[in-house]
Amino acid sequence: MGNKLTKRAEDYSKWYNELVMKADLAENSGVRGMMVIKPYGYAIWEMMQAELDRMFKETGHENAYFPLLIPKSYFSKEASHVDGFAKECAVVTHYRLKNDEDGKGIVVDENAKLEEELIIRPTSETIIWDSYRKWIQSYRDLPLLINQWANVMRWEMRTRLFLRTAEFLWQEGHTAHETKEEAIEETQRMQGVYAEFAESFMAMPVIKGTKTESERFAGALDTYTIEAMMQDGKALQAGTSHFLGQNFAKAFDVKYTTREGKLDYVWATSWGVSTRLMGALVMSHSDDFGLVLPPKLAPIQVVIVPIYRSEEQLDMLNQRIGALTAELKAKGISVKYDNRTTYKPGWKFAEYELKGVPLRVAMGPRDLENNTAELARRDTLEKENINQDVLVKRIENLLVEIQDNLFNKALDFRNNLITEVDNFDEFQEVLDKKGGFVSAHWDGSSETEEKIKSLTKATIRCIPLDAKAEEGFCVFSGKPSDKRVLFAKAY
Amino acid sequence: MGNKLTKRAEDYSKWYNELVMKADLAENSGVRGMMVIKPYGYAIWEMMQAELDRMFKETGHENAYFPLLIPKSYFSKEASHVDGFAKECAVVTHYRLKNDEDGKGIVVDENAKLEEELIIRPTSETIIWDSYRKWIQSYRDLPLLINQWANVMRWEMRTRLFLRTAEFLWQEGHTAHETKEEAIEETQRMQGVYAEFAESFMAMPVIKGTKTESERFAGALDTYTIEAMMQDGKALQAGTSHFLGQNFAKAFDVKYTTREGKLDYVWATSWGVSTRLMGALVMSHSDDFGLVLPPKLAPIQVVIVPIYRSEEQLDMLNQRIGALTAELKAKGISVKYDNRTTYKPGWKFAEYELKGVPLRVAMGPRDLENNTAELARRDTLEKENINQDVLVKRIENLLVEIQDNLFNKALDFRNNLITEVDNFDEFQEVLDKKGGFVSAHWDGSSETEEKIKSLTKATIRCIPLDAKAEEGFCVFSGKPSDKRVLFAKAY
Repeated sequence: MGNKLTKRAEDYSKWYNELVMKADLAENSGVRGMMVIKPYGYAIWEMMQAELDRMFKETGHENAYFPLLIPKSYFSKEASHVDGFAKECAVVTHYRLKNDEDGKGIVVDENAKLEEELIIRPTSETIIWDSYRKWIQSYRDLPLLINQWANVMRWEMRTRLFLRTAEFLWQEGHTAHETKEEAIEETQRMQGVYAEFAESFMAMPVIKGTKTESERFAGALDTYTIEAMMQDGKALQAGTSHFLGQNFAKAFDVKYTTREGKLDYVWATSWGVSTRLMGALVMSHSDDFGLVLPPKLAPIQVVIVPIYRSEEQLDMLNQRIGALTAELKAKGISVKYDNRTTYKPGWKFAEYELKGVPLRVAMGPRDLENNTAELARRDTLEKENINQDVLVKRIENLLVEIQDNLFNKALDFRNNLITEVDNFDEFQEVLDKKGGFVSAHWDGSSETEEKIKSLTKATIRCIPLDAKAEEGFCVFSGKPSDKRVLFAKAY
Repeated sequence: MGNKLTKRAEDYSKWYNELVMKADLAENSGVRGMMVIKPYGYAIWEMMQAELDRMFKETGHENAYFPLLIPKSYFSKEASHVDGFAKECAVVTHYRLKNDEDGKGIVVDENAKLEEELIIRPTSETIIWDSYRKWIQSYRDLPLLINQWANVMRWEMRTRLFLRTAEFLWQEGHTAHETKEEAIEETQRMQGVYAEFAESFMAMPVIKGTKTESERFAGALDTYTIEAMMQDGKALQAGTSHFLGQNFAKAFDVKYTTREGKLDYVWATSWGVSTRLMGALVMSHSDDFGLVLPPKLAPIQVVIVPIYRSEEQLDMLNQRIGALTAELKAKGISVKYDNRTTYKPGWKFAEYELKGVPLRVAMGPRDLENNTAELARRDTLEKENINQDVLVKRIENLLVEIQDNLFNKALDFRNNLITEVDNFDEFQEVLDKKGGFVSAHWDGSSETEEKIKSLTKATIRCIPLDAKAEEGFCVFSGKPSDKRVLFAKAY
């Protein structure tokens, strides 16, 4: 398999799939719709996890772990939830296999049929609230702020690596509060944490907003979202935070004694981000040469490649670069010195370009003589010759600069793809020719939303939190509206 | 629910279950055999994970993630593996539910039956080696050193929190090597990592050895184990590392081009530890008052409780203790200041004793006057009055001392429970009256091993790596033997 990628302009979707596989992020497994996350991809996910986990803990949350399998009946307890989640799912019906009669294979043992089918969690509200009933008695037990890192399963028919897979990895926060106000505040706080993570670490600008009723999480009274814009003009929902009201507390009978000594149902939130963020990261910054990673999420921030013709030269380079590597590590920079003799420098250059390593240092015998090195940045593909005395300082500065540059570039790109339109012809034209977010007035009805979706495939991504009051008329129905919402085709 | 525990001497098993639940480590869920790991328990597991993960990375391993569900046919490819793992397992047969006819519930949709049943992984050799076939072509791709943190499922009929649950969390390392020697070296290296972790972090002494043929992992040529001794005289297998030979490479056709240009099957290992270690940790050190945690794995190393009668006193204590807390944190000590007004000091003392917090500081108004504090250690239950000027230094020293003390105490206990016997009467008597490890000669046959097991419930825990050559006769058959092995009843 050559490393040459399909160009984005030729076939964006093919480019994405090739890139994910060739950069060793993930691949399809032998099981339909389920991916293998390869070590390099998993290393990026671990860095995402570490930052998010730190942010969750800083906002007072603790981790816990709840069962993978949920009895079917649990889903039926919350009416809208069952329709949203319990249908397309993996169902465990038996707990034993046996040798078949000809002894050549194994078959399901019909004597080991479960009394009640178990469902592999598509999300854990039901099993978690079944526990919370035991954990919450009094206002002194509140707020209960819990997060879980877990695998979940939704039986998707059309899957794409990271973006839509039957099994995916995620975190799901589930909190319980004394009051409605506290729960709403928590919902918003976690939307804020997600936005901060997306922008500061992934270098991916997002728009904070709320979902319309028809796009809400099944069982939520309100869903807060962060929406990102990919390079092909399609939006991607990058994280959601749900205000669940008292729905799950009522479904699972979770009451607490208030400060006034009364009994009341608690108020709930849930919020999650998943390995889908890996897809968003890839599609935010990468180019026709491969992955481009923001330094804050790059498993290798700097790669150093020695250029040599003799073993003696390699020895001298090993010595010099050994010292450089130690110096970089001491600054907290993750560096890889690739002095494998089994691959040539040109192969290594292409490999680390494909893998999105932010900075590459090359050093040869002449560099040793001249006290220089070649420094190449992945984001702009620019190279510079640099004196070794200032190399470490320059690398430190460039890592910050690259992080900022990627964010600003993505922000410019995204801002350029927000188009205000005031009639439906324009709406369709922008969607067809330019893509991106279409900012338009909408009459607030699910009916109009549904009609627009069936005509254009665009959905309302969100009602932006910072939407300003503006009198206008729905682009579709002509009915009055008081603010614009953002439509887009989406992943 | 009162905090009073059943005493170990009264009913060890009951003590264990109560302790796990009352110390908020875990509880049973509404799903048979599956536990909920509560935040405090999960925090300990996270500390274990962090240390192990660091040790795996230091020995060159990377993490990855493979699918939860494995096609039934994969298991049939390795003959002994299918018998060991594919029988008692959770089987996914359908991928959709639908509303039933009366509209009141949801039922399995028979139109959504999978062509081939999928099994929730009981261990991942098969699905991982199916990927390795694609990843390994040449000696340049070796060694392949991969670990996975995951949930697995084995349909256990008799379950106990942490020790034996249908679903559990674990890590599973899966490596591929050019030569037999390298694979064996890796197997031994990881046994060493596990032993180092158990002894240095869990303060739990272990015996390193190999398993007999009948106790080996299904599909392994050799299983290396670390065996610990619990307070009730039963052994616990705390971690295993398997030399798999070329079994899985052959089953999944994983060949590589050697340095000499030939094609050969690669050599494999796998190794794992699980949330079972949580059970081992509880049973190694805890007492009739509750959990006792080694400082290196304690989510809270020091708890500080203010003693006050007036709000004014609390204000003064908050100020003094705020400074102390900051000073301890700066030293990298995890400290909790519990100044909740909703609970009394006596309640807090009992609570943190139950939760095994290594050190407790209490400070009242008189302490402020006298510049003193009360310092209590959890392992010995000793208290001392101490000058505040030396408090931080004393805490630092005590945390080291407690870690050492727990290990030494457990080591003495364990060493006292290794008994050499030379005939079968003695063998049975020691097992019945004293418990622990029985060190005895064995003739090396599975038949004898099986007979001893059915008569005494004791199994051969391991053939110790450091067993010295010693001529003797099998305690059961009287046949000649050249070294002693360790028998015990086990978890």
